[in-house]
Amino acid sequence: MEKLSYIDPKEIELAEARLAPFLNETPLWRSDLLDSWLGHKLTFKIESFQKIGAFKYRGALNVLLKLKEQGNLPDEIVTFSSGNHAQAVALAARTLGIKATIYIAKYASPIKKQATISYGAEVIETESRNEAEQLVLKAEAEGKFAIHPFDNDDIIIGQGTSCLEALREWPEESGPDAVFATCGGGGWMAGTYLAAKLAQPSMKVYAVEPLNANDAARSYRDGKIFRFDESPETIADGARALSVSERTFQYLKQLDGFYEVAEEDIIYWTQWLTHLLKITVEPTSALVMGGICQWLKTQKTPQNVLVMLSGGNVSPQSYRKIWQENYLETPPSL
Amino acid sequence: MEKLSYIDPKEIELAEARLAPFLNETPLWRSDLLDSWLGHKLTFKIESFQKIGAFKYRGALNVLLKLKEQGNLPDEIVTFSSGNHAQAVALAARTLGIKATIYIAKYASPIKKQATISYGAEVIETESRNEAEQLVLKAEAEGKFAIHPFDNDDIIIGQGTSCLEALREWPEESGPDAVFATCGGGGWMAGTYLAAKLAQPSMKVYAVEPLNANDAARSYRDGKIFRFDESPETIADGARALSVSERTFQYLKQLDGFYEVAEEDIIYWTQWLTHLLKITVEPTSALVMGGICQWLKTQKTPQNVLVMLSGGNVSPQSYRKIWQENYLETPPSL
Repeated sequence: MEKLSYIDPKEIELAEARLAPFLNETPLWRSDLLDSWLGHKLTFKIESFQKIGAFKYRGALNVLLKLKEQGNLPDEIVTFSSGNHAQAVALAARTLGIKATIYIAKYASPIKKQATISYGAEVIETESRNEAEQLVLKAEAEGKFAIHPFDNDDIIIGQGTSCLEALREWPEESGPDAVFATCGGGGWMAGTYLAAKLAQPSMKVYAVEPLNANDAARSYRDGKIFRFDESPETIADGARALSVSERTFQYLKQLDGFYEVAEEDIIYWTQWLTHLLKITVEPTSALVMGGICQWLKTQKTPQNVLVMLSGGNVSPQSYRKIWQENYLETPPSL
Repeated sequence: MEKLSYIDPKEIELAEARLAPFLNETPLWRSDLLDSWLGHKLTFKIESFQKIGAFKYRGALNVLLKLKEQGNLPDEIVTFSSGNHAQAVALAARTLGIKATIYIAKYASPIKKQATISYGAEVIETESRNEAEQLVLKAEAEGKFAIHPFDNDDIIIGQGTSCLEALREWPEESGPDAVFATCGGGGWMAGTYLAAKLAQPSMKVYAVEPLNANDAARSYRDGKIFRFDESPETIADGARALSVSERTFQYLKQLDGFYEVAEEDIIYWTQWLTHLLKITVEPTSALVMGGICQWLKTQKTPQNVLVMLSGGNVSPQSYRKIWQENYLETPPSL
């Protein structure tokens, strides 16, 4: 287990340079129609178009590239994941020519599992998230190199490059008033916070979580980490972490706010973002809009918002749930 | 009714310049994974990202801009459509500040109807496609200006700009060996043919149609136009034209081939293109892959194919049908 220290935000700039040759530079998009309905300006950072279809590749690759720079690249790595981190580690390992073994709870998205295997990793299914975590701890104790999905400084730094890239690409002189991202284990959220502090300290930073998986929001409110015993039930399969870690919590505590979104709202926004942007959007991505609307309702002047969309890997099973009801007859409004 | 003549392919270049200030320049994308599975190189022209979410805006806007150039812009236009042409005419009319009335058969995609209304057009629902066509003929006889979805030279010319743009954006010295597009009424197919003949005469040009709505393929085989009495049943709602027209057929006759695709295959490719490209893909778009695979099976050397993806407007009802079964467990192969 890595020592707990506070990351220098400049590390994210270094990571950006390190990762650039390997990443897709994902675009910033707007929907004029959505802006006209909400009366605010929203700009979406589309990580659905990142390699493996989600931001997670940034963190995993950053860990391995940094180990390589230091001459410490192991022959083999292990991890656990609910899906996108699994794919990210698998592809990063393949890119650097090393072996990856990944523990995935059996409820995880089959499409993410399949992709992980297709990137050449060995996938071991476990009964639960808890079991997956325990098996990685065991492997680590036996000397294997483990890459935790979020409790790792170089993961946090890598994930932060996504927000930094968005702020560099930003099309206007003055930056966004606020940035919103989804919180699972807190790696992306912590990285986003650090990137925002580096590039534009005045910008507000908010996290959004499924109401059904609100361990981080509870932790934020109570000032101490709350942990679920079992993976919470939510359509947002990327936000089913049991708890944040001390490492990510030190940044999460400093956020400007935490919003929680009900399942129906998550599905509503998954439908609408898919429809408006013509891209695939994971429920874990789309739920961020539920938090943004709660915040916008409290704003008296038009706001300029950076919306971090984490990824677009949706399984057929999720598609069936997402499109069971039709929410496209009710356009978004505040 | 416009006189039947043969379009000078250079008209497509003129249209490109005329339309450029109003259009999104849609990207060309590849999927390395798909290429590795098929053993050929496929490049997708993504018209899902065109305004109104489909290529159809090109043709409708070209008609109105040309009328304006000639000082003949009417105050009001009428048309019928199964969906994307309706949205295209509605947005083009709004862009030029004129009124649009659009007849849509009641079975058409509700999401396309809703968008048409949101662009400011008056929508009149009819019992059938035939009735919609008849009502437009009647309005035309009464002196209204009608924009037929495909039986119009400036529509064909406008739709052709999509292929011409793809060939201009083409990332390699040598162009594609072949281009494939979907055939509904034949407007896009005719424009694609003309653009290909203009920019790269050696390139093969193929059309793909749903097996259930194969009027154009039958017409191609028999050398004379076949017409359905009723709109054929297919998940590819953009390809439900009753027949091609004499105007489009003169180009369709010259194509290098016509492929027909079964419903299950259309759904298979809708799932896979959505999954691989992380974009929304209409079944009417995705079905083109069924034809491409039939053709690739007959090729002895690796082919370089331009795949025209027509659009990404999918209704919740279609999503439910598309994701009823899971085809993502069976990766594409030839």
